[in-house]
Amino acid sequence: MSRRSPNTPAPDVAGLRARLDRARAAAAKSGTDALLITPGSDLRYLIGAGGGSFERLTTLVVPADGAPALVVPKLEAPGYADTPTDELGIDILTWVDGDDPYKLVAGRLGKPARVAVSDFTPALHVLALRDALGDAEQVLAGPVVRELRMRKDAAEIAALRTAGAAIDRVHARVGEWLRAGRTEAEVGADIAAAIVEEGHTEAEFVIVGSGPNGASPHHSVSDRVIEHGDVVVVDIGGPIAEGYNSDSTRTYAVGEPRDADVAETYAILQRAQAAAVAAVRPGATAEQIDAAARDVIAEAGFGEYFIHRTGHGIGLDVHEEPYIIAGNDLPLEPGMAFSVEPGIYQPGRWGARIEDIVVVTETGVESFNNRPHELVVLGS
Amino acid sequence: MSRRSPNTPAPDVAGLRARLDRARAAAAKSGTDALLITPGSDLRYLIGAGGGSFERLTTLVVPADGAPALVVPKLEAPGYADTPTDELGIDILTWVDGDDPYKLVAGRLGKPARVAVSDFTPALHVLALRDALGDAEQVLAGPVVRELRMRKDAAEIAALRTAGAAIDRVHARVGEWLRAGRTEAEVGADIAAAIVEEGHTEAEFVIVGSGPNGASPHHSVSDRVIEHGDVVVVDIGGPIAEGYNSDSTRTYAVGEPRDADVAETYAILQRAQAAAVAAVRPGATAEQIDAAARDVIAEAGFGEYFIHRTGHGIGLDVHEEPYIIAGNDLPLEPGMAFSVEPGIYQPGRWGARIEDIVVVTETGVESFNNRPHELVVLGS
Repeated sequence: MSRRSPNTPAPDVAGLRARLDRARAAAAKSGTDALLITPGSDLRYLIGAGGGSFERLTTLVVPADGAPALVVPKLEAPGYADTPTDELGIDILTWVDGDDPYKLVAGRLGKPARVAVSDFTPALHVLALRDALGDAEQVLAGPVVRELRMRKDAAEIAALRTAGAAIDRVHARVGEWLRAGRTEAEVGADIAAAIVEEGHTEAEFVIVGSGPNGASPHHSVSDRVIEHGDVVVVDIGGPIAEGYNSDSTRTYAVGEPRDADVAETYAILQRAQAAAVAAVRPGATAEQIDAAARDVIAEAGFGEYFIHRTGHGIGLDVHEEPYIIAGNDLPLEPGMAFSVEPGIYQPGRWGARIEDIVVVTETGVESFNNRPHELVVLGS
Repeated sequence: MSRRSPNTPAPDVAGLRARLDRARAAAAKSGTDALLITPGSDLRYLIGAGGGSFERLTTLVVPADGAPALVVPKLEAPGYADTPTDELGIDILTWVDGDDPYKLVAGRLGKPARVAVSDFTPALHVLALRDALGDAEQVLAGPVVRELRMRKDAAEIAALRTAGAAIDRVHARVGEWLRAGRTEAEVGADIAAAIVEEGHTEAEFVIVGSGPNGASPHHSVSDRVIEHGDVVVVDIGGPIAEGYNSDSTRTYAVGEPRDADVAETYAILQRAQAAAVAAVRPGATAEQIDAAARDVIAEAGFGEYFIHRTGHGIGLDVHEEPYIIAGNDLPLEPGMAFSVEPGIYQPGRWGARIEDIVVVTETGVESFNNRPHELVVLGS
C-alpha cells in the first residue's frame, strides 16, 4: 500500500530549476552545507512531487555546492517518474529494504559541518541522519525554504486566486444546508461535498461551530443540533489540483441571533478585520497587521476574547510562513499571501470570525476571498 | 482551521491506565527519563485522542517516574475534552501563541539525561526540544512504545478482525467495477466509495495496478484504460471508527490473462503466500516468515522479481512493527498482527500480489482476510 501520492500539475522545468538554484543559494548564504528535503510540501515545491511512505527514507539532497540527488526507495521511485529529474540534473539513488539509506545520504555529502532537515521530517529520520552524519550540526531547513516559499510567483498567486474563488462559491451556498434542526456534522458533510464539487481535490477541513461551539476557535463539527438563534462560524477550505489551498471563514446566524450583544460585537470584529486588510502593503510588518486588528478589538474592550494570532501564510500548506502575530517584525513583500482572520469568542455562548486570504501587491493588497463580510442572517 | 481530529471510541479508562503504566515501566526499563509523545497514533494509543496542528506543539510528557502532563495549545485543548485526563492523573498545561511550549516541557522535566520523542514528531519540534532540554540525549520513543503496541489486546484484535471482514466485503464486490474499457482511476473511485460503504471511515489507499502498472508495487491508480487480458493488482484498505486498519490485496484477471506465463507464476506466488502464513506461530521469527515466502519464490527461479519485504505490522497505523523482513529476528508472540503479502513483478508486463492480515494466536495463526487466494478471473 501507499498513501495517495500528492503529485499534481507541476511548474515547468525552468521554474523548478530556478527554485532549486535559489534553494542552493539560500543554503550557502545561511552557512548550510546541504538541505535534506523529505516528502511534503517543501519537496513538492522544489521538484513538483512529494509523496512517500513514512518509514522508508525519501530525501532530496541539495548541497550548497554540487549536484542534487534524490534518495528514494526503489519501489517508490515510480512515484517520481513524472518529475523532470534528468533536466534538473538530479541524480537518483535508489535503495531496497535491507540497505541503509542514511549511509547513502552520508556518502553523498562527505563530512558536512551543518545540514538542514525539512521541518516536516519525522524524528525517525532526523535522529538516524544525526547518527549517520557524525559531527554535523542539524538545523531546520524551514528558515531557508520559507524564504523562497513565502514569496509566491505569478503561477502560485493565480492558483491561490482560483482556490479562493472556489471556496467563495461554497460560502455562497451555505444557506442551502445550514438550518435549525440539523447537526453540525450533517451540515459539515454537505459543505465537504460542495468543497469538492466547486473545484477542490478534497475538503481538508470543515469547521461548523454553532452556538457555544463557535467560541472554540478550533472546534471541528459535532452532533450538536443547530437551533434557531444560533450564531455559526463556518471555516472551510482545501487544496485545488495544483496543490494550493483555500481557507475562508464567514459567520452566519440561523434566524435573528438569540444573544442581544451579537450585532454590536460583530460590528467591532468587522471593523477590526477591515482595518487589518487595509494595513497590508509592502513594508508593513506582520506584527503591524496583527496589531491593526487587535487594537480595534482591544479598544472596544474585547481584547481578552481574541485569543489567537490574526493570520497565517498559505500556499502548498494551509499554515505556513508568514505568521501574522505579535513579535514577527518581518516586513511584508509583494507575493506574500496569508489569512486575515480575527475572531471574538464569548465562552459558553457564541463566537464569530471573519477570514480572507490576501496577497501583498506592489502597491497594497488583493483579497482572494470576496464574499460580503456582514453577518449572514439565514432563514431558519 | 484544524485538521479533522482522529478522536474515536477509545478504550475504557482502566485500559488506558494500563497502557500508560506499561509505557512508564518500559521507559524506565530502557533507561529513558521521559517519553514525549506528539499527535499521532502513539498518542491515540495512550490516551484515546491524538489530534493537533503541525506547527503548534502538543505533547504528552510521560516521565518514567511521576505524573504525566499534556502540553497543548489552549485553542486546541477542546480536542482533548473527551479524554479522561482527570481519571488518568494527567495534568493539563496549556499555552497560547507567544509562549514557549518547549520551555514548558523542560520545566516539567528538570534535567533529564535521556528523553525519547515519538517517531512521528516533526523536526520542527525535535530540534526545538533538543535545544530546550540542554544536555539530554534524544532517542526515539518508537522502540519503547512499539513494545506495547505490537502486542494487541483482545479489543484491538476484535477491531482488526472487523476491519478485515469489511475489506473482504469490498474485494467480494470488485467484479462490479473492474472491467475492460474503464480507467484504473474510475475503478479506484468506485472501490473507494465501497470501502466507506462497507464500514471504514475513509479509503486510506486504493491501488489498482493493471497490466504493466501491476509490476510497480506502490503504483496507486492512473488514467490507463484497462484492457481485456490484463492482470490487475487491487490493494486496498483504511481505518474503521476504532482507528484500526484493514489492508488486503487480491489479484484479478480481466478475462483470460494475455500473458502465457501468468497461471504458472501465480501458482508459485500462491504457494509462497500459503507457506508464509503456515509458518506463523509463537516463537517463529519475523525473518523466518519472510524466508518462508521468499524461499518458495526463489527456488522457482523468481527471486529477483520479489522486490519487497513480505509484510508489515498493522494496527492504528497501516505500517507499524513488526516488519516481516530479512534480518528481523524478533520472535513472534500471541497478539502480533501483520500482513503476509509476497508479490511477483514482471517489469513492463504484469504483476501479482496476495495479501492477508494475520494475527499470531496461542497455538498458531488466525487470518482476518478470508477471500479465496486464487487468481480471480472476471468476465470482461
